Amino acid sequence: MNVTFWYEATQEREPGENGVLRAYPQGLAAAVAEAFAGEPDVNFRAVTFHDPENGLPEEILENTDVLLWWAHVNHGDVPDDLARRVQQRVLRGMGLIVLHSGHDSKPMKLLLGTSCALKWRDDDRERLWTVLPGHPIAKGLPEYFELPLEEMYGEPFDIPTPDEVVFIGWFAGGEVFRAGCTWQRGRGRMFYFQPGHEAYPIYKDENIRQVLRNAVRWAAPSEIGPAPFCPNSPPPEAGH
Amino acid sequence: MNVTFWYEATQEREPGENGVLRAYPQGLAAAVAEAFAGEPDVNFRAVTFHDPENGLPEEILENTDVLLWWAHVNHGDVPDDLARRVQQRVLRGMGLIVLHSGHDSKPMKLLLGTSCALKWRDDDRERLWTVLPGHPIAKGLPEYFELPLEEMYGEPFDIPTPDEVVFIGWFAGGEVFRAGCTWQRGRGRMFYFQPGHEAYPIYKDENIRQVLRNAVRWAAPSEIGPAPFCPNSPPPEAGH
Amino acid sequence: MNVTFWYEATQEREPGENGVLRAYPQGLAAAVAEAFAGEPDVNFRAVTFHDPENGLPEEILENTDVLLWWAHVNHGDVPDDLARRVQQRVLRGMGLIVLHSGHDSKPMKLLLGTSCALKWRDDDRERLWTVLPGHPIAKGLPEYFELPLEEMYGEPFDIPTPDEVVFIGWFAGGEVFRAGCTWQRGRGRMFYFQPGHEAYPIYKDENIRQVLRNAVRWAAPSEIGPAPFCPNSPPPEAGH
Amino acid sequence: MNVTFWYEATQEREPGENGVLRAYPQGLAAAVAEAFAGEPDVNFRAVTFHDPENGLPEEILENTDVLLWWAHVNHGDVPDDLARRVQQRVLRGMGLIVLHSGHDSKPMKLLLGTSCALKWRDDDRERLWTVLPGHPIAKGLPEYFELPLEEMYGEPFDIPTPDEVVFIGWFAGGEVFRAGCTWQRGRGRMFYFQPGHEAYPIYKDENIRQVLRNAVRWAAPSEIGPAPFCPNSPPPEAGH
Repeated sequence: MNVTFWYEATQEREPGENGVLRAYPQGLAAAVAEAFAGEPDVNFRAVTFHDPENGLPEEILENTDVLLWWAHVNHGDVPDDLARRVQQRVLRGMGLIVLHSGHDSKPMKLLLGTSCALKWRDDDRERLWTVLPGHPIAKGLPEYFELPLEEMYGEPFDIPTPDEVVFIGWFAGGEVFRAGCTWQRGRGRMFYFQPGHEAYPIYKDENIRQVLRNAVRWAAPSEIGPAPFCPNSPPPEAGH
Repeated sequence: MNVTFWYEATQEREPGENGVLRAYPQGLAAAVAEAFAGEPDVNFRAVTFHDPENGLPEEILENTDVLLWWAHVNHGDVPDDLARRVQQRVLRGMGLIVLHSGHDSKPMKLLLGTSCALKWRDDDRERLWTVLPGHPIAKGLPEYFELPLEEMYGEPFDIPTPDEVVFIGWFAGGEVFRAGCTWQRGRGRMFYFQPGHEAYPIYKDENIRQVLRNAVRWAAPSEIGPAPFCPNSPPPEAGH
Repeated sequence: MNVTFWYEATQEREPGENGVLRAYPQGLAAAVAEAFAGEPDVNFRAVTFHDPENGLPEEILENTDVLLWWAHVNHGDVPDDLARRVQQRVLRGMGLIVLHSGHDSKPMKLLLGTSCALKWRDDDRERLWTVLPGHPIAKGLPEYFELPLEEMYGEPFDIPTPDEVVFIGWFAGGEVFRAGCTWQRGRGRMFYFQPGHEAYPIYKDENIRQVLRNAVRWAAPSEIGPAPFCPNSPPPEAGH
Repeated sequence: MNVTFWYEATQEREPGENGVLRAYPQGLAAAVAEAFAGEPDVNFRAVTFHDPENGLPEEILENTDVLLWWAHVNHGDVPDDLARRVQQRVLRGMGLIVLHSGHDSKPMKLLLGTSCALKWRDDDRERLWTVLPGHPIAKGLPEYFELPLEEMYGEPFDIPTPDEVVFIGWFAGGEVFRAGCTWQRGRGRMFYFQPGHEAYPIYKDENIRQVLRNAVRWAAPSEIGPAPFCPNSPPPEAGH
């Protein structure tokens, strides 16, 4: 299974001390990669917005079974054409896991059709409740788990009614959030997962890593289909 | 529109001082009735478990457009036949609003097919978030509103994925709950609404009353259909 | 209620004899307008792609409660900005009824996120089955009704799983189609309704007109909300 | 994976010539068993209504990961307690595949909450369309496939809106039917699949067998959970 982690890497490359490197001295991608270190059938690869063709030239995208998308400050800089190519590949079957501030990314909004707007605030404590305990993405997770520091994301969250809500977040400051949501688009499966602010070591948390592993397996396609099109179609002959 | 409020009235009739009468000196039903006092087209009627035929003889049920169901200590005493008659009328189009501890009632469980189990604890503070602001049941409601004292009901809540989640509750003690959920069953619309512990004057709260009014209008049927059955059906003649 | 019917009017203005005028000597819009002739609270207005600002200047769109969209040959000519303005107004609460070949329009695809691809063929007989008889859009409709000539639209139809499927079409040539589907997007309600090929007098059919009337009432917003945005939000004070 | 096929075996044991044995000289179960003959990790077992404890004593049910249920003439004879035990095990995670006239069985109706009523007629030709081609249950299936003779099952089908509709059936006589539907109930996954009239050799069809294999894998639980219950729950300590 080819898993590609697309991320910006913009903030962690900023000169001087920065919050991302404090939380992730090896960079954000290294912590995500570790989540898959014990999975021999997962071929993990990290690419960035700053790579050639913004990290997703045709030969990489066409060889990706599940794409993880982490983004924050470069949403507007992602070319429309790249966003559309991601959308088209999801419709053909690729899994897409959108992480944290990726809620505001072009691929997420193209595939869902809404603004994906939400409330936010820095520095709160979050408790994530597993509300659909039998779901494959919840496998092995406890009834709830905590993140001592996370950015607050609060309702109302302007998304289409999810096919399934797997996790709901509780924030000490008084908010709730549909923190883990699934949708099917075309032949592809999408999962949005809210935790992951870059200034806290969220992706070093073992529960979070379990969710990532589960989500990737859940979203993996059985096969990639053809691009959807509108054929003029004669009647099946037996139909007459 | 004929609206019937079915409730137990068991606790409030207990001798000596009791918590229900402290919260509702005129009884629970009087507070619910007041919610509809300014609605001239709503013909409101309260019946109880202790009435003849447990409050729902055929002539009342057959003249009810929307039924509200509040229950707590008599779930097991409700005759199976009454629960099935309620279920059948919902399938034909009657609206059903299940309140608070009614989550464990026979009609709710018959119509949803799951255990409707949840966590609970007395005496917490709840904040209800409107997560689907455009929904008719949310009309006129603020982004969130609070209940200073309510029984905590917490996830996981063993229900089928709701058609829509209109409200999510946040509890100061650390839990979340899908507090306002809709389902369609047959021709009928159902709404479960969590607030309403009998020891607190929840049904005197103006936001709660607005939800009840909205829910009743949303659940009202355009027409009551025939009982579903399985006809042996000749092919439509033009089909051959 | 302000109902705006947006359509292309391109084919019916073509010189010489044309199929649209054979089916609709007064034009397509006149037949749709007649569906609402007996509805005194509906303020019906028809606009076309060829009008100034393609028929939907800000002052018209901002005064529209429910927009009907019929399109076929000019999908690509609709400005992206107009499609986005329609999308934004749906997210704020406006109802949107997409008709027939409008499945391939920019607003439909922007709001649903999929290709909306389907099969098609001219000149078949369609029977529409009411599969959700209690739904407001099915009010007053028979168990099934027929269109002696309609363009065949067949599955697979590349749409997100609808919130509700109200009608399924059967075609004599051997296909099926989810012919009447609902989705909520933001605060707005959408309904896609497949019948309506321009060369047959579909919109003169009384059942079709009943569906249009029902759909418009179902999709009408209780209120138009603000544009969605992402506020930095302090904690509710009681939360601390 | 332990797969148990529960069926009535009543009709095929009737004296004299009978339709089931004409279609299935070795009996219905032998044809279903053959579908799994090439699956070494599937431990297939067939039990019948006429076995001790109606085929599902506790030690069998508790060792079943996925239960297939085929029934027709003995629905009313199945003990309520058995139906409830099946329901409870689904809520804990067991997969349930309900076949053909099992739509009217006690477990199906207990889990869905509706009448599951439908239209029916003998001896029609059915074409099944794959409307959700990316779904695991549709893996390897063609765009459509045919059954030259099948009992007609037609809409309206009184079921809760399925989580997913994978197949829609087209009948030559003029009907349509949601022929393959999924629902989650508690931790368990359910799939209803319409083909399977006992008088035609439906379960010898290779496409039908592929659907059965896919459905069993899709419905298999990752783990069986505890019975749902309603705990009095102290606040998570960090929550205060």
